[in-house]
Amino acid sequence: MLNFDYCAPTRFVFGKGSENEVGATLKPHASKALLHFGGSNIKKSGLYDRIVASLNAAGLAFVELGGVKPNPRVSLVREGIGLCKAEGVDLILAVGGGSVIDSSKAIAMGRYYEGDIWEVYEQGKPVSKALPVATVLTIPAAGSEASGASVISNEEKAMKLGYTSQVLRPLVSFVNPELFFTLPRNQIANGVSDMMSHVFERYFTNTPRTDLTDGLCEATLRAIMKNALILMDNPQDYDAWCEIGYSGTVAHIDMLGMGREEDWACHDIEHELSAIYDIAHGTGLAVLTPGWMRYVYRDNIPMFMQFAANVMDVRLSCRDPEALILEAISRLGYFFRKIGQPASLSELGIGSDQFEHMAKKATGIAYGKEERPVGGLKKLYWQDVAAIYALVK
Amino acid sequence: MLNFDYCAPTRFVFGKGSENEVGATLKPHASKALLHFGGSNIKKSGLYDRIVASLNAAGLAFVELGGVKPNPRVSLVREGIGLCKAEGVDLILAVGGGSVIDSSKAIAMGRYYEGDIWEVYEQGKPVSKALPVATVLTIPAAGSEASGASVISNEEKAMKLGYTSQVLRPLVSFVNPELFFTLPRNQIANGVSDMMSHVFERYFTNTPRTDLTDGLCEATLRAIMKNALILMDNPQDYDAWCEIGYSGTVAHIDMLGMGREEDWACHDIEHELSAIYDIAHGTGLAVLTPGWMRYVYRDNIPMFMQFAANVMDVRLSCRDPEALILEAISRLGYFFRKIGQPASLSELGIGSDQFEHMAKKATGIAYGKEERPVGGLKKLYWQDVAAIYALVK
Repeated sequence: MLNFDYCAPTRFVFGKGSENEVGATLKPHASKALLHFGGSNIKKSGLYDRIVASLNAAGLAFVELGGVKPNPRVSLVREGIGLCKAEGVDLILAVGGGSVIDSSKAIAMGRYYEGDIWEVYEQGKPVSKALPVATVLTIPAAGSEASGASVISNEEKAMKLGYTSQVLRPLVSFVNPELFFTLPRNQIANGVSDMMSHVFERYFTNTPRTDLTDGLCEATLRAIMKNALILMDNPQDYDAWCEIGYSGTVAHIDMLGMGREEDWACHDIEHELSAIYDIAHGTGLAVLTPGWMRYVYRDNIPMFMQFAANVMDVRLSCRDPEALILEAISRLGYFFRKIGQPASLSELGIGSDQFEHMAKKATGIAYGKEERPVGGLKKLYWQDVAAIYALVK
Repeated sequence: MLNFDYCAPTRFVFGKGSENEVGATLKPHASKALLHFGGSNIKKSGLYDRIVASLNAAGLAFVELGGVKPNPRVSLVREGIGLCKAEGVDLILAVGGGSVIDSSKAIAMGRYYEGDIWEVYEQGKPVSKALPVATVLTIPAAGSEASGASVISNEEKAMKLGYTSQVLRPLVSFVNPELFFTLPRNQIANGVSDMMSHVFERYFTNTPRTDLTDGLCEATLRAIMKNALILMDNPQDYDAWCEIGYSGTVAHIDMLGMGREEDWACHDIEHELSAIYDIAHGTGLAVLTPGWMRYVYRDNIPMFMQFAANVMDVRLSCRDPEALILEAISRLGYFFRKIGQPASLSELGIGSDQFEHMAKKATGIAYGKEERPVGGLKKLYWQDVAAIYALVK
């Protein structure tokens, strides 16, 4: 096991009705909140009214900024930063999924950052201070309610970049699985694909002797797959949503990756796809992940054999490990199809014309930088990345 | 899944040499520490000198109080509280295992509590404030480096009682698995037994539909058992100690128990044993747990079938679940014997004369209170508790 330094101080208020505790819980921490959200869904569902009632009952003042879209844009972040400064906001309350929470984290940093916030993402400028962020989760997927990560898109530059800092861990996250009942099936599938990827990126490693975190990753993946299929049959199964909701948090709270080298190739490769084509992150991951597996598995046959046996439940046949592994990858692909994900980029209308360009962006050389390979289990250079796009075309 | 409210803000600095970061890490949080520890082992091993060097290098003043023994005594806690008040201590640095950390937490509360600290444990008085506690873990077992729990013994009253509060969660814990290399085999066995019990107490539940936490518990138990046997062969296997060290934390950081009704019967029943006989907590748990399982399994056959298959690796035979379960319990008993634990109370020199008295203490009626059954999966009244002692006599 590698050395590690871990701290996940976010409080989770989980279960039915938790959103009604927002006001009383946040009041000791803030005098004026920015209520940040996406579209009109939270108003139609009544969630907006319940949160406003909770804030009013606690006497916590707030201003609001809606309009966050998937692949949240830096332009709206800049608007939020201006609003926070003008209004003396001292806490961001994100009501939404990963996009809203990531946008909120960017605003939270931008409140104190002295340059343009995009510099932080593009140049990796260190940030030591941010407003506290609270979240009311409406889509379990990104794990942003637990993580210190934020991913923002720059629409002018067609770039999507992530930034991670301990100061971005939310203060408190309210997770009421009943709020997920109305999600359409494609959003369920995208959420499930994203959280599974958060586990895969930690699971596939060359670090030896990591029994505990291996097992925690495998248990999380099995719980997600089992309950995702239940939700495909009945999107209002409360207990299945509890499992998916808590799994999304566990997947990205970093505990599963401690002491092991992580991978993150699929995320890096997918970000280039959704930066150009504006497809959902989870969709891109579902298409890319089996291709990535087929491309890299020979670099760590024992790791992929364990995946086959312990996650995909393929009975071990050590005399033909490649067949075992390919069967497991095939079963994973079948799982993704069962939840409604496409199996290829062509199904998304994406051709091969940008493969080389995206591969060169993913590895940095498109920006005239020295090549920075992606991935951990296998280092992937731009030709490797292009080959993975081609494998799933 | 049940509603829950979870927050585990402790920072973990894990790996080789982590104890050398104590001074620099704590300096921003304190002006004067109480260095609290047990016997002379930490001086012989050089750990004491390294920590003192780290504190001195950072310019963090400290006073010290040694002498903590297993089943830490309230008398020493009172001495520590007096020392903190007299010396203006504003942080407790616990260097040791669960006993030292639990003693430190009691002192940390007592610094602000206005009555005698034992009242907090005996009467469950609410405590809202405590000094920050940092830990350098020398025995992975109790999980106290991650939990908000503290168990203290009152030697005059022959009582051992626990108290749990969010304010007792350590600020930061330093875990260097190399420090565990010199532990004698019986302490390894006791640590392993204790952390396994922390998982069992959360795992065995009547709460339905808890796939994720079921799987996380099972993975943790498998990792502990696998690596405990490695350590019996080679107590200086660093990677095995990493697994055991991290498992002890994961076992008791509460994440595995969220959303499920927990049990804790074995802990409650064991505390009475070690309060009277002063045996190691882990030893008592290793003896009692298989007996508790045999006594309660018929109340939740599916839960114990899952334990048999997923933890003890007994191939499922649904047509004879009782045989399956008894085989699993037998394998657990065999595991405990392999790591050197006794299989009965008589091996510890404990006769049956106190069974009824201990059972009445565990359920409160020995103190003239209304009977308070222990356990969650099966509610155990005093006759049940006495029967479990008798099962393992």
